Amino acid sequence: MTEIRGLRKIEPYVAGSQPKEDNIIKLNTNENAYGPSPKVSQALEAFDAHSLRKYSTLDQAALRHVLAENLQVPADQIIIGNGSDDILSMAFLAFFNSEEPVLFPDLTYGFYKVWADLYRINYHEMPLNENFEIETADYFADNGGIVLTNPNAPTGIYKPLDEIEAIVKANQDVVVIIDEAYINFGGQTALPLLQKYDNVFITRTFSKDAALAGLRVGYGIGSPKLMAVINAVKNSINPYNVNSIAECLATAAVEDWAYYEETCQKIMTTRDWFSSALQELDFSVLPSATNFILVEPNGVSAEELFNHLQAQKIYVRYFPKVDRIKNKLRISIGTQEEMERVLSAIKEIL
Amino acid sequence: MTEIRGLRKIEPYVAGSQPKEDNIIKLNTNENAYGPSPKVSQALEAFDAHSLRKYSTLDQAALRHVLAENLQVPADQIIIGNGSDDILSMAFLAFFNSEEPVLFPDLTYGFYKVWADLYRINYHEMPLNENFEIETADYFADNGGIVLTNPNAPTGIYKPLDEIEAIVKANQDVVVIIDEAYINFGGQTALPLLQKYDNVFITRTFSKDAALAGLRVGYGIGSPKLMAVINAVKNSINPYNVNSIAECLATAAVEDWAYYEETCQKIMTTRDWFSSALQELDFSVLPSATNFILVEPNGVSAEELFNHLQAQKIYVRYFPKVDRIKNKLRISIGTQEEMERVLSAIKEIL
Repeated sequence: MTEIRGLRKIEPYVAGSQPKEDNIIKLNTNENAYGPSPKVSQALEAFDAHSLRKYSTLDQAALRHVLAENLQVPADQIIIGNGSDDILSMAFLAFFNSEEPVLFPDLTYGFYKVWADLYRINYHEMPLNENFEIETADYFADNGGIVLTNPNAPTGIYKPLDEIEAIVKANQDVVVIIDEAYINFGGQTALPLLQKYDNVFITRTFSKDAALAGLRVGYGIGSPKLMAVINAVKNSINPYNVNSIAECLATAAVEDWAYYEETCQKIMTTRDWFSSALQELDFSVLPSATNFILVEPNGVSAEELFNHLQAQKIYVRYFPKVDRIKNKLRISIGTQEEMERVLSAIKEIL
Repeated sequence: MTEIRGLRKIEPYVAGSQPKEDNIIKLNTNENAYGPSPKVSQALEAFDAHSLRKYSTLDQAALRHVLAENLQVPADQIIIGNGSDDILSMAFLAFFNSEEPVLFPDLTYGFYKVWADLYRINYHEMPLNENFEIETADYFADNGGIVLTNPNAPTGIYKPLDEIEAIVKANQDVVVIIDEAYINFGGQTALPLLQKYDNVFITRTFSKDAALAGLRVGYGIGSPKLMAVINAVKNSINPYNVNSIAECLATAAVEDWAYYEETCQKIMTTRDWFSSALQELDFSVLPSATNFILVEPNGVSAEELFNHLQAQKIYVRYFPKVDRIKNKLRISIGTQEEMERVLSAIKEIL
């Protein structure tokens, strides 16, 4: 058998599992239990399948227009992607082309390392401090760019905006990406920084707050200088990267943002109640501004609790290979009713 | 103003324009005028918007299963993407990692060059011969991989399968990609080569024959050895790259493939009639096995004809910057009625 030359060797990202059983409580991929706005269903019903014969838009003008209104930023400073993974992957290619290492935390979205490896970008992982917080001073070192998730995952911890600004301000000669996948669960957005700094690029997703994980829509917001570069990258990979139905339904979601403010509020209320309930069991819970919590059980190991919950068809995320959090579980926040059932299941094993 | 380091400089692909007017005849991006199968509309109506709260599948098992039956290949030799651009972009990253140049024709899908530039892959463009055909012998040179569109675009010319096989056979130490975007308009697929060669990777799209350009679904088919590599790349870029509705509707399309065989046949019949009608006007028409023709007008320049048609709201593709075809127009084949109107408009200007 002839050996084939040129095949790439890489270690891919491993996503949370997607169990196919019915009647499960699925708290392992930070999905939104409340589901999308009724306006999204209406938009889906009204969508004409025949129109799919034509290509989707190249510029997603309709979606960018409603986002611009909602976020109070110019529409031409927004780029739409096939999930925020698409946007982030393009941003790595577009913005990280110097020799110096890109910096991001050792505990953060696991994909940053994967994109850096794939695109042969030099990087350093900066350890979170002993409280699992991002240390501002770590990001004053020489670098070729910075990526911060805020609030961070899988910790859930929010970094105050003035600290984010200090990092952006000290690094105006490179791009600082702020991944705001979870910003609408209690954090303060870095969007106002766009008015002062050309080097900040903010990414968002419809998968968490907007309950549209299956629709695959994300977006990025940056200065005109950065937009020119990332739009060129988009047009060099897959110009029609957002399908027509995805653009239409995401637009409907933004138009009914009041619905989402309400459901995000419900999730935050449940999160705070659930966190307190676990703390009463002497579990250690990191302070979360997201739709999940990272929790270290007491009186039972993370592995035992993970297996016990799974036996009850409750799926949470367990990271046995990640040393600093191998004693913790990441639990997405479902509905109040679901979390009451989870609490009962936890009490059962203790 | 601080200069930002690390920004990528690239020349992106320029897609055909997407005019927003009504009542146009749009023949500039090789879309399918007949629209998707009624089963696709039914699947869309039945789709539950609430399910979008969950992530799409990681493996598109349902879609791969029906494709496997339809194509008579094992399901685990199929990978699904966000359009075939997504698949091809990943294939370049996955398969072209040697120092030697990747070979493709000088006149072919314009994106190959763009991906090669983006991913810093060395390449050589091999000129088509004077009849605008791919010369088999050109691809016996040392290389780091080969990409052929068959039938080729924008020429429309089909290369017989035995000649494709000769190229695959002579290059078993590198990957040969056969882009079959237009294969169902009269060509013979290279799928049987999969049983003999590990180094062939075939790509397909739902944008042309399946009339689902706006849905953004494409796929690739290759040996288990190649699948392992490209799946790792997929999982290193955007594992949830196909949205849930796209998978569902594409599955419905494959399940009603008889509908598409009928519409593809209509398009071929119209194409052959339209080609003959233009030849009667002494236009030079390349022999097409696709849903478009590349034609050199007689008695009027390509530019004049392009402008005249556009004034009548008929959009075709004109490549003034591509020297070898600057005197030609690429005209997608619409419905019989549309092409009769196009023929009248052409006769008008002569």
